[in-house]
Amino acid sequence: MQRILSTELARHIGETVTVAGWVHRRRLLKSVAFLILRDAAGLAQIVTTPSAVQDLSEGSVVEVTATVTEKDGVELTSPSVRVLSRVSVPLPLELHRPALTATLPTQLDHAAVALRHPARAAALRVAAAATGAFRETLHRQRFVEIHTPKIVGSATESGANVFRLDYFGRPAYLAQSPQFYKQMMVGVFERVYEVGPVFRAEPHDTARHLAQYTSLDAELGFIADHRDVMAVLTSVLAGMAAAVEPWAALTVPGEIPAVPFAEALAIAGAPADEPDLAPAHERAVGEWARREHGSDFVFVTGYPMAKRPFYTHPDPADGRLSNGFDLLFRGVELVTGGQRLHRYEDYLSVLGGDLSPYAGYLDAFRYGMPPHGGFAIGLERFVSRLLEVPNVRQVTAFPRDLHRLVP
Amino acid sequence: MQRILSTELARHIGETVTVAGWVHRRRLLKSVAFLILRDAAGLAQIVTTPSAVQDLSEGSVVEVTATVTEKDGVELTSPSVRVLSRVSVPLPLELHRPALTATLPTQLDHAAVALRHPARAAALRVAAAATGAFRETLHRQRFVEIHTPKIVGSATESGANVFRLDYFGRPAYLAQSPQFYKQMMVGVFERVYEVGPVFRAEPHDTARHLAQYTSLDAELGFIADHRDVMAVLTSVLAGMAAAVEPWAALTVPGEIPAVPFAEALAIAGAPADEPDLAPAHERAVGEWARREHGSDFVFVTGYPMAKRPFYTHPDPADGRLSNGFDLLFRGVELVTGGQRLHRYEDYLSVLGGDLSPYAGYLDAFRYGMPPHGGFAIGLERFVSRLLEVPNVRQVTAFPRDLHRLVP
Repeated sequence: MQRILSTELARHIGETVTVAGWVHRRRLLKSVAFLILRDAAGLAQIVTTPSAVQDLSEGSVVEVTATVTEKDGVELTSPSVRVLSRVSVPLPLELHRPALTATLPTQLDHAAVALRHPARAAALRVAAAATGAFRETLHRQRFVEIHTPKIVGSATESGANVFRLDYFGRPAYLAQSPQFYKQMMVGVFERVYEVGPVFRAEPHDTARHLAQYTSLDAELGFIADHRDVMAVLTSVLAGMAAAVEPWAALTVPGEIPAVPFAEALAIAGAPADEPDLAPAHERAVGEWARREHGSDFVFVTGYPMAKRPFYTHPDPADGRLSNGFDLLFRGVELVTGGQRLHRYEDYLSVLGGDLSPYAGYLDAFRYGMPPHGGFAIGLERFVSRLLEVPNVRQVTAFPRDLHRLVP
Repeated sequence: MQRILSTELARHIGETVTVAGWVHRRRLLKSVAFLILRDAAGLAQIVTTPSAVQDLSEGSVVEVTATVTEKDGVELTSPSVRVLSRVSVPLPLELHRPALTATLPTQLDHAAVALRHPARAAALRVAAAATGAFRETLHRQRFVEIHTPKIVGSATESGANVFRLDYFGRPAYLAQSPQFYKQMMVGVFERVYEVGPVFRAEPHDTARHLAQYTSLDAELGFIADHRDVMAVLTSVLAGMAAAVEPWAALTVPGEIPAVPFAEALAIAGAPADEPDLAPAHERAVGEWARREHGSDFVFVTGYPMAKRPFYTHPDPADGRLSNGFDLLFRGVELVTGGQRLHRYEDYLSVLGGDLSPYAGYLDAFRYGMPPHGGFAIGLERFVSRLLEVPNVRQVTAFPRDLHRLVP
């Protein structure tokens, strides 16, 4: 018999159906037993006899053929149970409780089980939905998906925090971002995106950094300046907000408030000569955006050039400032973006020195690149802020950090 | 003025429009000059005077406002040209010829330019379209996208051909596949997929191996056996064929022919005791499928257990054979898949020895896993066979191999 999902039962009242899933909870009373079955869609209650479920520990995988009965909700009665996989030991975590009570390290050690908890699973569904919306929104605007190397020959983009590996006897590095490659691909498709892992040998043990995370990267050519990039990003965020709506309410204003860097410092009460926003400043600007504009998002524009990467395009009106921006989401930096340099001469002058590690990258500019820019969204950080989960590891299936390399 | 694409010109006859792109070709005659502009969508011809384009070398990026005129096709006349980026040296490759004549190493060295050739770019568009269809087909069948670690603590899946890296002072490895993780995630979502990079320290320099390639991975639970996996794969291939239709004709039969391994050996004229199909055998079976079934695809089922990975589920009718399959595409192995072991005891008996490196993986089975299976498609290999390109590097933006680590 074709299996149906737990959520489809209500459409089959009075019929005999087959469901399958995990024993989520078993309750044995004197003369009756309740088996709560968990499948990918939800839960189903099966009413049976204590002896029939005696050997069915939680976690066991079963296929149940039974009658769909309506009585205080929908339940399955007169079941015949086929065991697909029998669990003989207690689960390391209590999956049937509304929230996991195990510590985070225990959850991460037993990720294969912990992720079965509906709350942990939901966070990953949110990530999947957001990722799908990121792609769809860009696809509708002519962006083409690309796949770029994760192993690179030199740690050129930023020397710090790279993982070094042995590449057929030569040193190589894990890519910290697809930045160079997505720029090069603007020369091919004008508009590109990539969803992929990026690697940071982050020596700090914080609640918001991972050694591997999923970066949602986009880059587009033929822009006037960074505001065109911000407009595309706004459309992407609106798409992502719509996609996560089943799990979390998120409103993206048609125009996200944008404050120049100097104003952001003033809002945060920071000295006017600070070169960057500290986390506390970001929180203050986030609170301001919520208070003054009712917005979860706020752009900070025109960061000083000194604190932006070498490929950042300066503000034509003031060379000390950049056409780079950050997007804060509920007071945390979620996106970095901006306009990039596009003239070959500009790269020669900002790079100087030995250009050979940059040869393949510089080719793109030497042989003609339009004005362009882009952005990168940290997926896990988006989900953790959205769901107001304090630690990014709680929304990552198998996190990698300073201490953790398994499972 | 809002820029339009070259392919939209025909809808604007008689109007003044703005286009933008690269100088693809410049032809100077005595009193007239033709500028062929290339944008992401195609080509446009601009008619002007020789003096107006004197300084516009090929590769330069321009924005052109001109009148759309119909005359032997659509062309742009009375242009005013704004230079966005001026190229002052000859391109390292001739992009305007129907095919790139430069050697493959030259193309790869100058990837940022070579990929701008319409044929090279088209292959990457095919890859993007196929990837999108892979996801969509699975999404419609309840599969959830996952992101799994690319840095792993032990080279457990297969000891050979792994890249080793320094992970905060400890040894670690680049993941050869998401196999363990996608199985673990079947315990969470029942059906999962991942599109991501996989890494093989492949010591051989062949036309079909890369050190990093894009793997389209899927895994599903609650299957009867490997034939359920083959059915999902068939639906995915049909979706991919429809998506690549603008570039290449590909027919996926409703039921792809499947031959048991022993028959495949016989078809290939190989000795009956061969444990695997050699490339020549695969070609012979591919030719047979084309000749006898008119199919580009053929499944080979029931490979001997001896040649399949440890997690392979045996054929219940004959323990020497497996519920694993390969899919040959035009005589080349494109997909490996099959049913996996799902009982904890089975893993204990096939693994033996020190189980600690497998602890996180084994958790999934110890705490209940349904019968499941899956498959992995090599994206670059699919595109190269589809487009009948002899070397997989020709359809990879920035290939990594034994010798190549840049750009």
